[in-house]
Amino acid sequence: MGSSTVISISDGDNQRVAGPDDDQEMKKKFQFSLLPIFSYLRSSGQKNRLQVSCVPPIISDLREKTNKQDMRKLIHSFKVGIALVLVSFLYLLDPLFSQVGENAMWAIMTVVVIFEFFAGATLSKGLNRGIGTILGGGLGCLAAALAQEVGGIGNAIVVGASVFIFAAVATYVRQVPNIKKRYDYGAMIFILTFSLVVVSGIRAEKVMRLARERLSTIGMGFVTCIFISLLVFPVWASDELHDSIASNFEHLAHSIEGCLEEYINATTFTNEKENQPIANFNRCKSILNSKSKDESLANFAKWEPWHGKFGLYYPWIKYLQIGEHLRELAATILSLKGCLQSPRQPPTAQRERIKEPCEAVGSILTWSLRELGESISKMRKCHAGTSIVPKLKSTRAEISSVSTNCKVDHQDIDHEYQDGGLAMATFVFILMEIVEKVEELAKEVDELGELAGFRSHHELA
Amino acid sequence: MGSSTVISISDGDNQRVAGPDDDQEMKKKFQFSLLPIFSYLRSSGQKNRLQVSCVPPIISDLREKTNKQDMRKLIHSFKVGIALVLVSFLYLLDPLFSQVGENAMWAIMTVVVIFEFFAGATLSKGLNRGIGTILGGGLGCLAAALAQEVGGIGNAIVVGASVFIFAAVATYVRQVPNIKKRYDYGAMIFILTFSLVVVSGIRAEKVMRLARERLSTIGMGFVTCIFISLLVFPVWASDELHDSIASNFEHLAHSIEGCLEEYINATTFTNEKENQPIANFNRCKSILNSKSKDESLANFAKWEPWHGKFGLYYPWIKYLQIGEHLRELAATILSLKGCLQSPRQPPTAQRERIKEPCEAVGSILTWSLRELGESISKMRKCHAGTSIVPKLKSTRAEISSVSTNCKVDHQDIDHEYQDGGLAMATFVFILMEIVEKVEELAKEVDELGELAGFRSHHELA
Repeated sequence: MGSSTVISISDGDNQRVAGPDDDQEMKKKFQFSLLPIFSYLRSSGQKNRLQVSCVPPIISDLREKTNKQDMRKLIHSFKVGIALVLVSFLYLLDPLFSQVGENAMWAIMTVVVIFEFFAGATLSKGLNRGIGTILGGGLGCLAAALAQEVGGIGNAIVVGASVFIFAAVATYVRQVPNIKKRYDYGAMIFILTFSLVVVSGIRAEKVMRLARERLSTIGMGFVTCIFISLLVFPVWASDELHDSIASNFEHLAHSIEGCLEEYINATTFTNEKENQPIANFNRCKSILNSKSKDESLANFAKWEPWHGKFGLYYPWIKYLQIGEHLRELAATILSLKGCLQSPRQPPTAQRERIKEPCEAVGSILTWSLRELGESISKMRKCHAGTSIVPKLKSTRAEISSVSTNCKVDHQDIDHEYQDGGLAMATFVFILMEIVEKVEELAKEVDELGELAGFRSHHELA
Repeated sequence: MGSSTVISISDGDNQRVAGPDDDQEMKKKFQFSLLPIFSYLRSSGQKNRLQVSCVPPIISDLREKTNKQDMRKLIHSFKVGIALVLVSFLYLLDPLFSQVGENAMWAIMTVVVIFEFFAGATLSKGLNRGIGTILGGGLGCLAAALAQEVGGIGNAIVVGASVFIFAAVATYVRQVPNIKKRYDYGAMIFILTFSLVVVSGIRAEKVMRLARERLSTIGMGFVTCIFISLLVFPVWASDELHDSIASNFEHLAHSIEGCLEEYINATTFTNEKENQPIANFNRCKSILNSKSKDESLANFAKWEPWHGKFGLYYPWIKYLQIGEHLRELAATILSLKGCLQSPRQPPTAQRERIKEPCEAVGSILTWSLRELGESISKMRKCHAGTSIVPKLKSTRAEISSVSTNCKVDHQDIDHEYQDGGLAMATFVFILMEIVEKVEELAKEVDELGELAGFRSHHELA
């Protein structure tokens, strides 16, 4: 659990990072919600055997994850410090300084600028910087040579014109969304290097030597970063994305559980109502806002070399599609909020009538979501087409029976009752939609299993 | 219209930028949707007089906006080119070069790195760079002096240790979400300057002079950027946020219109159904994903100096709150999707029964949203508390009458009909929620009017 809102992604300013407050909030939430969940488990018997094993580890898991996140940040800070000290040796040690001279500065600059939290981000920025420098330096040398050919006042004019043209064109290109997403930094470095090389070409006789020396120190900074980022306690964006998607299944299952529980038992704790639903929906909301985080993680993951369980051509795009489905599901669960928080509630007697089938639907839904999440997390095929989907389909029959029970009698023409009936019908309808969306998710997870080559149960045995 | 998905924000990688494709898509969408809208307008008479004047300008408005966006990007590219040529003069002109020497490089670097699309973003990056440089440089000088006091091998040890400690601490601080949001770049520049100054202090005798010279060239780059960014065709993030929030009201009104139209007339064009709803919902989805864009725009807007209609302490935070409400409303409208695309549809006869009241509710809703959007856009008070809210409240009575009509007769025990009834009940319930959310929005807009000092009608006259 816990990883979806916990790490702040370098590109997304809108990510929250778990801190002591979150931990407190979590504890409060679980104190509130454990009681009804346990009573629910007891009342609904063997159907929920999976939930019994799932609820207690959530708390310890969350605390563990929060500590792990803090630890990772601390380690990242140490790594940056070490990398900077290493490149500082270019200045500090006389034999090295006599080789590189003042250009050692570029190594330090490179380390500060490209060292990012995730290995993939560091690699992406480093390669962007490398390519931008080489392209900009090469073209800059050509332009500088051309300007020197012209000579005299024409020299300055050629330099000024080439700076203007290349900077304007590259800036325009930077604003194209697809280039912005992956090569923004490279384009910036291109403009920088081109301008620097072409204008200093006017003064420095040996512009080629200058370019070569700078490039070599940039290379030293790059190698230092990559070495430390990839080999010393590496933090992989691919692991982060994988775990975050897998744990979102658990979060949604937990939300559905909470919703159903609350809706059915609403009459017993109306006073605590304001405290209750928000906790469940916060997770859903953070999943709803996870699009930019997922996209940048996938972008970094693509840059990461083969490591651990992920090959070079791992289908990250499928993770994004599953993420999209999860967001839709989260939005649907959030629209249950309208029913839960609506002042128009059906009377208890009416609720009682839909209690049993709702519990059954809920337990199938949460079981399915947890199976799917576990399938991703453990990278084993879940064969959803033959195991989960049929169960979900049969669930629809149960919902139909619910829909018979939730009708309001025509005698209750009193408005309040009628609105309560509407709320209940909406609740049931949204439940149907949730079942459909989980079915779609099951198919997506099956496809991911095929594409990513998840192993079957018997291969694992 | 059009501005919510059109501009790519420098910090958010997930923004789409309008291009020729969008324009095509828009045209297609309007070809599809104009017919039913006009027939709707004709059928529902004088209630919709506001819509008649609103629909045709949408198309021309959108095309105009798209061109305007392209134009702005082009102008931005030119501005970057000009700024770079200006700072290149430090190299190109002999009298200037004799003053600054090789440090002219820092001016070029500053321009490339801090020149952003929005004036506020440029200012924020520039100030961050300035503060980071001064702090890092100052502390770096102190550390370098301390290291020179120690002398000998201890010198190198002090330098290495101080680089490690400051870099690690600053990197850890950078990861705190609130600092990351506003001062990430400043912290990076702090690490960079500190390391450069402290390590070159070992070699350069006159570290103070070096620091002063670099700072002065960075200052020149900064002034050039600010001058061009703020005075030559400035692009204000505050304008962008203001227009985007105001136009989102219109987008949501348009979506509601489209939904109601489609739901009521679904039977008449079932074949085109696949093409129809997506267009309406895309706008809602882009509003739903606008959180990070809004936040970074508000962040930049806060840095922007007094200009045009916005004062220094303009309540940008209120815009973010309104944005949050708009996103919730968009999510609710999206959940109508479930009803529209559900295979379980009520029979036409049933739809007919709710046609009239739905149209009435829809026209009040769209009128309210457009009034609110216009109030923000023209910065005049709309007195929603006395004009819009009462109308919305009376609308609830109309919805109650709808809810009476949408009940399924108990004789229709056939499942298909029953599910259709559920879909219809859900549709009506969600409509109720939309009315409530628009009421909340009206209150928020009233509050914004108070905080931002919008003028009243009679002041404008």
